Amino acid sequence: MQRPSGRNPNQLRDITFTRNFTCHAEGSVLVSFGNTRVICTASVEEGVPRFMRGEGRGWVTAEYGMLPRSTDTRMGREAARGKQGGRTVEIQRLIGRSLRAALDLELLGENTITIDCDVIQADGGTRTASITGACVALVDAINFLQRKKVIQTDPLRQMIASVSVGMFEGEPVLDLDYPEDFAADTDMNVVMGESGSFIEVQGTAEGAHFAREELNAMLDLASEGIASLVSMQKAALAEG
Amino acid sequence: MQRPSGRNPNQLRDITFTRNFTCHAEGSVLVSFGNTRVICTASVEEGVPRFMRGEGRGWVTAEYGMLPRSTDTRMGREAARGKQGGRTVEIQRLIGRSLRAALDLELLGENTITIDCDVIQADGGTRTASITGACVALVDAINFLQRKKVIQTDPLRQMIASVSVGMFEGEPVLDLDYPEDFAADTDMNVVMGESGSFIEVQGTAEGAHFAREELNAMLDLASEGIASLVSMQKAALAEG
Amino acid sequence: MQRPSGRNPNQLRDITFTRNFTCHAEGSVLVSFGNTRVICTASVEEGVPRFMRGEGRGWVTAEYGMLPRSTDTRMGREAARGKQGGRTVEIQRLIGRSLRAALDLELLGENTITIDCDVIQADGGTRTASITGACVALVDAINFLQRKKVIQTDPLRQMIASVSVGMFEGEPVLDLDYPEDFAADTDMNVVMGESGSFIEVQGTAEGAHFAREELNAMLDLASEGIASLVSMQKAALAEG
Amino acid sequence: MQRPSGRNPNQLRDITFTRNFTCHAEGSVLVSFGNTRVICTASVEEGVPRFMRGEGRGWVTAEYGMLPRSTDTRMGREAARGKQGGRTVEIQRLIGRSLRAALDLELLGENTITIDCDVIQADGGTRTASITGACVALVDAINFLQRKKVIQTDPLRQMIASVSVGMFEGEPVLDLDYPEDFAADTDMNVVMGESGSFIEVQGTAEGAHFAREELNAMLDLASEGIASLVSMQKAALAEG
Amino acid sequence: MQRPSGRNPNQLRDITFTRNFTCHAEGSVLVSFGNTRVICTASVEEGVPRFMRGEGRGWVTAEYGMLPRSTDTRMGREAARGKQGGRTVEIQRLIGRSLRAALDLELLGENTITIDCDVIQADGGTRTASITGACVALVDAINFLQRKKVIQTDPLRQMIASVSVGMFEGEPVLDLDYPEDFAADTDMNVVMGESGSFIEVQGTAEGAHFAREELNAMLDLASEGIASLVSMQKAALAEG
Amino acid sequence: MQRPSGRNPNQLRDITFTRNFTCHAEGSVLVSFGNTRVICTASVEEGVPRFMRGEGRGWVTAEYGMLPRSTDTRMGREAARGKQGGRTVEIQRLIGRSLRAALDLELLGENTITIDCDVIQADGGTRTASITGACVALVDAINFLQRKKVIQTDPLRQMIASVSVGMFEGEPVLDLDYPEDFAADTDMNVVMGESGSFIEVQGTAEGAHFAREELNAMLDLASEGIASLVSMQKAALAEG
Repeated sequence: MQRPSGRNPNQLRDITFTRNFTCHAEGSVLVSFGNTRVICTASVEEGVPRFMRGEGRGWVTAEYGMLPRSTDTRMGREAARGKQGGRTVEIQRLIGRSLRAALDLELLGENTITIDCDVIQADGGTRTASITGACVALVDAINFLQRKKVIQTDPLRQMIASVSVGMFEGEPVLDLDYPEDFAADTDMNVVMGESGSFIEVQGTAEGAHFAREELNAMLDLASEGIASLVSMQKAALAEG
Repeated sequence: MQRPSGRNPNQLRDITFTRNFTCHAEGSVLVSFGNTRVICTASVEEGVPRFMRGEGRGWVTAEYGMLPRSTDTRMGREAARGKQGGRTVEIQRLIGRSLRAALDLELLGENTITIDCDVIQADGGTRTASITGACVALVDAINFLQRKKVIQTDPLRQMIASVSVGMFEGEPVLDLDYPEDFAADTDMNVVMGESGSFIEVQGTAEGAHFAREELNAMLDLASEGIASLVSMQKAALAEG
Repeated sequence: MQRPSGRNPNQLRDITFTRNFTCHAEGSVLVSFGNTRVICTASVEEGVPRFMRGEGRGWVTAEYGMLPRSTDTRMGREAARGKQGGRTVEIQRLIGRSLRAALDLELLGENTITIDCDVIQADGGTRTASITGACVALVDAINFLQRKKVIQTDPLRQMIASVSVGMFEGEPVLDLDYPEDFAADTDMNVVMGESGSFIEVQGTAEGAHFAREELNAMLDLASEGIASLVSMQKAALAEG
Repeated sequence: MQRPSGRNPNQLRDITFTRNFTCHAEGSVLVSFGNTRVICTASVEEGVPRFMRGEGRGWVTAEYGMLPRSTDTRMGREAARGKQGGRTVEIQRLIGRSLRAALDLELLGENTITIDCDVIQADGGTRTASITGACVALVDAINFLQRKKVIQTDPLRQMIASVSVGMFEGEPVLDLDYPEDFAADTDMNVVMGESGSFIEVQGTAEGAHFAREELNAMLDLASEGIASLVSMQKAALAEG
Repeated sequence: MQRPSGRNPNQLRDITFTRNFTCHAEGSVLVSFGNTRVICTASVEEGVPRFMRGEGRGWVTAEYGMLPRSTDTRMGREAARGKQGGRTVEIQRLIGRSLRAALDLELLGENTITIDCDVIQADGGTRTASITGACVALVDAINFLQRKKVIQTDPLRQMIASVSVGMFEGEPVLDLDYPEDFAADTDMNVVMGESGSFIEVQGTAEGAHFAREELNAMLDLASEGIASLVSMQKAALAEG
Repeated sequence: MQRPSGRNPNQLRDITFTRNFTCHAEGSVLVSFGNTRVICTASVEEGVPRFMRGEGRGWVTAEYGMLPRSTDTRMGREAARGKQGGRTVEIQRLIGRSLRAALDLELLGENTITIDCDVIQADGGTRTASITGACVALVDAINFLQRKKVIQTDPLRQMIASVSVGMFEGEPVLDLDYPEDFAADTDMNVVMGESGSFIEVQGTAEGAHFAREELNAMLDLASEGIASLVSMQKAALAEG
């Protein structure tokens, strides 16, 4: 088997994190998974949504968008169409849930962190890149809160990261780019914590199906990939 | 460990399928998973959406809704609020993808089957009940098309069914009702075909995480449950 | 003259009320007018809308919807289209106004009862069936409030019920089903109280017109039909 | 009994029709029922909506709006709020149905006439003034079509007009202004053709009810009032 | 050069102001610039929007709309389409900004004046007519506040007025009607105060461009026209 | 006078153009005016909007957006709120009109170029940076069409560029950053062609006004600034 990208089955794309990519946000990271590039910002705000007030816990929520020409063919702008599409909604809910697993919301106090993931260039795996980059921005925002003495605690429970895996010509492969994703039978997005436990597993066989052993092989690959991603996140955070 | 429902860990709720529940649809099934009750209808229409025209393949799509007072507290009506919520969108996309895996869309010809899943009473597991009931309605609609000689083929590849599994007080349990779902750490929805292969796996640990062995135990339980559900679907279809 | 349904001109369809049809609502009634079937629920909530606060009076409001495949041809889902159609809005305003005439809102205190009428199968007369079924659900909700000692009074002034009448081949007929409604020149929906007084009269001659004597004959028929409906409502409420 | 307006029970307000009020529309009438003033325009367009194409019949439809400060307190602009309210939708459907009863749509050919009723000053009875004024604008538009030889026939079957009646302190009164409408127990809008037949009867007893004799008395009054209105419409059309 | 309207290059159309055009608003003016006719109302409300509360300053805001058949071809009603178009939004923002320059908002106190400009007949220059007419309505509303002793001060800093200028066949012309606007290369809307200073200058060369001297010539013409308009505003306000 | 930025009155910020910033669009430029950074892409599509079909001319249109955290305080995402704000609509209409003045649309043939300007970091002047950067992207897209032989002509009439000017403490200043814009009395955005002619002039004195000499001084400064910007655009296009 030969991957369209020429990579080994268990090989990630080139991964980079550019911290402080924009100047206003408390956390701002440009993440690249190969040609997939996403601006992830973390915005801190005092207070929590109405339904949580007075409980002493914080909140993390996420929004996701793609620039209209981040893809090969221009997509209509969601703001102009007047609503977010189903895929967008699904992804931003996934990002929010995943990042809430990184924090102890009690220790965050009644503060809200809003994550914005805006894809400026897409080549497959935008949701996994978003989660992985957003976790770095989230840590920068937490550091900001500590530096400003808004919180005296450390709400970070663990780094989390995400990667896609799939079955390509009968073999499990890691971190699919767009042509690989398009050709694969099965696509699975996995979110894990640095301890190796699962946060989200979303496997889809659009019009097909996959066996238990295939599932197992894909999960093995995902675990390995996420361990590498967490190392890279930590290295990026160690700088500057 | 004692489940709130008093069921054994691997015990499904009482499952019933009432076919021909309403009179207009080509397939109409009232499905009950215990107190969760969903009206699933399959509506047949000639032709396919614009983006598929002329390719000779059919299409299956789904919509999902909850009656405002299907739940303990009345929810706002989505039609009145002017948009479907994120959870609704997520669920109806899942139902559509799952059911497309039941059919060979080539053999369906350029016909569209629209699945409507309307929850009239909710007690956990509305999406898994919807998928499981909708597959029965789908088969009735296929039979209608064959009886009317619209198609001469059999596009049904396999029955599909769905069930939830979760970790409750450290043990894997099958088919969670609402109080169990609320108390569980992890919730996983699994869609499988009658052959035992996976179509969708969606595991979520809202604010928590789960280990690989827990994942494995939950998948074992799901496989077992889905095998039972497929038997019941077939028994229901064998009647009348 | 022979009605399409074979009924006598002054004959109602088979009418049934199934109370406690769903388990969460304070009042829940499945009403059938022949093949027209509507789930009517009454939901009780403390407080009233902002514009009425502090006046000591209660409020009754209604929402109406049709499941997409309650009709012969599937209709687009209003939640998906992002707005309720004009007919929906017109009907739910009628239901709300009608039911407010059943109660003394002063005696209800500052509580709101929301009526949901969801048509699961349509064969003409969905608005009259909705009003007639909803009044039974409303009484169950009032009984709930009394049982829970939320109110010590009896706000029910009178039962109300509704039926359609029309001119079919020159003769007045009662309780039109869909084929009769389609063929009739004039369609009138009447809401009356058990005392025989009028609450709403809505007569429409789409593209036609009707004479004063025809109007009189239709109103006579409606009075007779509503008296029967009120008896059936009371019989249903006397059970259990 | 003394009406707030000082009028006799069967006395209309001052009624005026100003034809050619604006210059672009095929029919344009400013109608006044006392202080209620509505601009009614009729716009002619070739063709009919998709669902009627090829049947050879024409179509009449209506839209209704109120300028934000046509009322005592400024109302939010519906265009800014992004949707038409329920009352607006109800009224414009009534206007459209009523005017379709004025024409033989077969004789109109495949042409559409759109009626716009825009209330610039409101003092009760805006819907009845709208219908009455719009019928004059409709005739002007029909005349335009004949003059331009678009149609060789006369599609006008009859003039139609509309008026409100109500029960005020136990007596039936005609053509209620806003203070009278506010104080009345029952409000009924009647649309009739010049032959004296009914097109629409909409009686509402918000929170109250009315007896059969009261209904009869109100309908008598309405018949009388509409006969006068039709005379005034014809006089206005006879000018210029 | 001959203008389509036959007017001299520096000649305004016939300008009229009808005060108290409708009866409910605190200021109500029908303004005509030739065939362009706009109803301008000023509505006074106690209080200011949330973002300004407690600062002691007042607010002026504006909304703009066109009746569907104010133009040669009927436009879709914005309320029915569910949103205001880009041109509408642009114009109402311009009207609001312009009128705020007429007042000292400190002296207005925490009161809001909402300006509604509704075009009932359009023939070019609807935004300039709106601003010019609205300023008269605004003064009437200020007078109302003074008469009612809501304010003891005079917040009016200066009258403001607006006119369009353009380049037509190489020559600058004043106050373009629709055919002139359509044929002109450049269209500029100017808002000035009575002292001769600029409030807004918006020059647009759709698909073309204009030289500095042309700009200068157009501004000269605008200054002259606005001086005349202010005189007419003052004359209108001096009456009755 | 000392500008907050410390720049000379006639000094532009640091201006950079990064061509081919993203890989999918036919033209993609990251433009920086100091800390204001905008991604401008030009997307080419065959065909034109319906209202222009068959006329042989091309079309240029623009959309504008700001990432939620491009500003100091996070703004709500327009896609999530379900509509574009008035400011957004105003700006994207301005960008589209300006760029249409750069091209001879006849020579473009029936092709559409859609410009997307997405602000990733805002510090004042986002609309002027957008227009200036978009023109470079537009030229790259034109070059693409020529290279692909879609067009054999050169539709570029002239480079266009845009800059803001304002009155700050009584003196005219060029290219205002956010703190300067906030403090200035008057803000004017000017769009000019490389020949020195005007395309758009939009001067606003929110709550203030400016004299003719001030207007002249600001226009002088704008002409000078735009001449520099055009030189930089050309230098950027000359590379690679």
